[in-house]
Amino acid sequence: MTDDFKPTLPLPAIDDPQRRARVQAAIDAKTKPLGALGRLERLALQLALVLQSDTPRLLQPQLVVFAADHGIAAQRVSAYPAEVTRQMVLNFLAGGAAVSVLARQHALALTVADCGVAAEFDPHPLLARLKVAGAERGSADSSRGPAMSAAQCATAIAQGRRLVAGLPGNALLLGEMGIANSSAAALLMARLTGEPLSVCTGRGTGLDDVGLAHKREVLQRALSANAGAVEPLAVLAALGGLEIATMVGAIQQAAADGRVIVVDGFITTAAAAVAAALQPGLLAHCVFSHRSQELGHARWLQQLGVQPLLDLDLRLGEGSGAALGWPLLESACRVLAEMASFESAGVSGRAESL
Amino acid sequence: MTDDFKPTLPLPAIDDPQRRARVQAAIDAKTKPLGALGRLERLALQLALVLQSDTPRLLQPQLVVFAADHGIAAQRVSAYPAEVTRQMVLNFLAGGAAVSVLARQHALALTVADCGVAAEFDPHPLLARLKVAGAERGSADSSRGPAMSAAQCATAIAQGRRLVAGLPGNALLLGEMGIANSSAAALLMARLTGEPLSVCTGRGTGLDDVGLAHKREVLQRALSANAGAVEPLAVLAALGGLEIATMVGAIQQAAADGRVIVVDGFITTAAAAVAAALQPGLLAHCVFSHRSQELGHARWLQQLGVQPLLDLDLRLGEGSGAALGWPLLESACRVLAEMASFESAGVSGRAESL
Repeated sequence: MTDDFKPTLPLPAIDDPQRRARVQAAIDAKTKPLGALGRLERLALQLALVLQSDTPRLLQPQLVVFAADHGIAAQRVSAYPAEVTRQMVLNFLAGGAAVSVLARQHALALTVADCGVAAEFDPHPLLARLKVAGAERGSADSSRGPAMSAAQCATAIAQGRRLVAGLPGNALLLGEMGIANSSAAALLMARLTGEPLSVCTGRGTGLDDVGLAHKREVLQRALSANAGAVEPLAVLAALGGLEIATMVGAIQQAAADGRVIVVDGFITTAAAAVAAALQPGLLAHCVFSHRSQELGHARWLQQLGVQPLLDLDLRLGEGSGAALGWPLLESACRVLAEMASFESAGVSGRAESL
Repeated sequence: MTDDFKPTLPLPAIDDPQRRARVQAAIDAKTKPLGALGRLERLALQLALVLQSDTPRLLQPQLVVFAADHGIAAQRVSAYPAEVTRQMVLNFLAGGAAVSVLARQHALALTVADCGVAAEFDPHPLLARLKVAGAERGSADSSRGPAMSAAQCATAIAQGRRLVAGLPGNALLLGEMGIANSSAAALLMARLTGEPLSVCTGRGTGLDDVGLAHKREVLQRALSANAGAVEPLAVLAALGGLEIATMVGAIQQAAADGRVIVVDGFITTAAAAVAAALQPGLLAHCVFSHRSQELGHARWLQQLGVQPLLDLDLRLGEGSGAALGWPLLESACRVLAEMASFESAGVSGRAESL
């Protein structure tokens, strides 16, 4: 780890009790029964606090797809071959992937970060090269030892911070791509939460029962091979992946900047969970966009004490759920800014009780 | 009932098995694991069938807020006074209501249909006057007898059909406003499904426990006062409301035109359920946008065998949930039209099994 690397960044003080009271009062005064917009009202309050405005506006939202390859893919823990990571990066750049389509729909700026894909890409306006020295073609096989050295992990985190620091806007949407990265996320969940692998390990891109049993065996070996990793950063280096480590840095920088962070599915939740293990206050910046069909996700969200916006049986990653949830954030802001109050609209309040 | 009134309209044959197979194959060929877009994939298939195109496009979506007053409001079954119906219509027209804000966000054309509000409104470009002779100020009190005569109910249905026939586009989003209309919907649910009032009756705009108990007593009287109403149209006239009857006609016309229909919460579900009781094939045209927090809604959706898109603890009505769900319909169409296939993007398929 480099000498000047700091594991966290200072966070802004966003929980202003006066703003909280003022915005809640404004929500309650809107022309609707108290609480009738449900989850959208809580989202509006969160956005007001994170963006430190009574009428927050979402500006130049950035969706970043963090991509990397994983040494553990050699153990055949995924239904797809490892070269799909590279192929999907090209698909993102060409605009043909689900997240490409959804980002266009919602005018989300798309960046693809090569955090260690086993390929060299030609330069492309949407591509950021964030490879880590010694891990240019991906992480090592965590079933045989640590996936990254501490220094590589720190470099990935630092690069994630630098990437976000250079992006405009006040909202970061997280996406990811990496064949076998549901294995890395499951390992992080198992070690960070103490849940058994049977709860943490799902079918990923679509393993059958035999494949799932094999995946669990491999992950058990990875936990044993990295038994000494206990502290969050050590766990991340030992069991995580380059795109997850880079995302941890991206989340830290986004929170430090006072941006709102939209988390996607299981893999991006792994990054948010590592970041929150280092600094719990980060979670206040995060909007969890959906509950994935991937086995461990629902339990992990519960453990983090967060409630996702959508539950659409998604299990694609890429940031597709974050993009699908995005218009709800826009709606929450518009409700705050544009809805009339009972007073301004001349609408009567509740009747006297019976 | 007028002599030439027909209780249903002929429906187009939308379940083309060849299109179904073709579109499912196209979805499965997209660059994502099989089924990984979950609910969105099923929505895409439904839209392809309803709009009779392998790459459906949503054109000029129309959100109509059907508004009326209810005689049963005199029994104090709502937390809000009846004049709020009129006040909220003015709020819709002025652009300050939740549905106004959300319709603007998603470029949904908004129409407010006065199906029997206890007021005369000045002409307004967004207002359609669909009052029914003898019920200009709302329905009668169903706790003392039928809410509408059979003729009034038929007129409301016919007017709903005419309204939709005159609207452009291929998508109808349902909204409603009417103090006490969760009572009308609960009564329709109780009579159509046989569920007890304890399951069908919720807090509406926010009754306390005393208010809820009182509401159930009143609704029990309404069921007794209209014990003879059993057939769907008779039930609608006896227990429904003018905006619900008008919506039934609107749904029928929209389905007959081959439009997709986006259902909102508990009240619009009541209209869809009446329409489906008359003609079950109508449900194939309906997208249920969300599961409301109103007590009976989840059970009713289950009974209809449909799965809503969102579950955001909403209980506002107006069409707010339909508007919030709308971008998911757009996403489903874009995924079909714009996503690359494994072949076109040069992405490898699943690995050989272990």
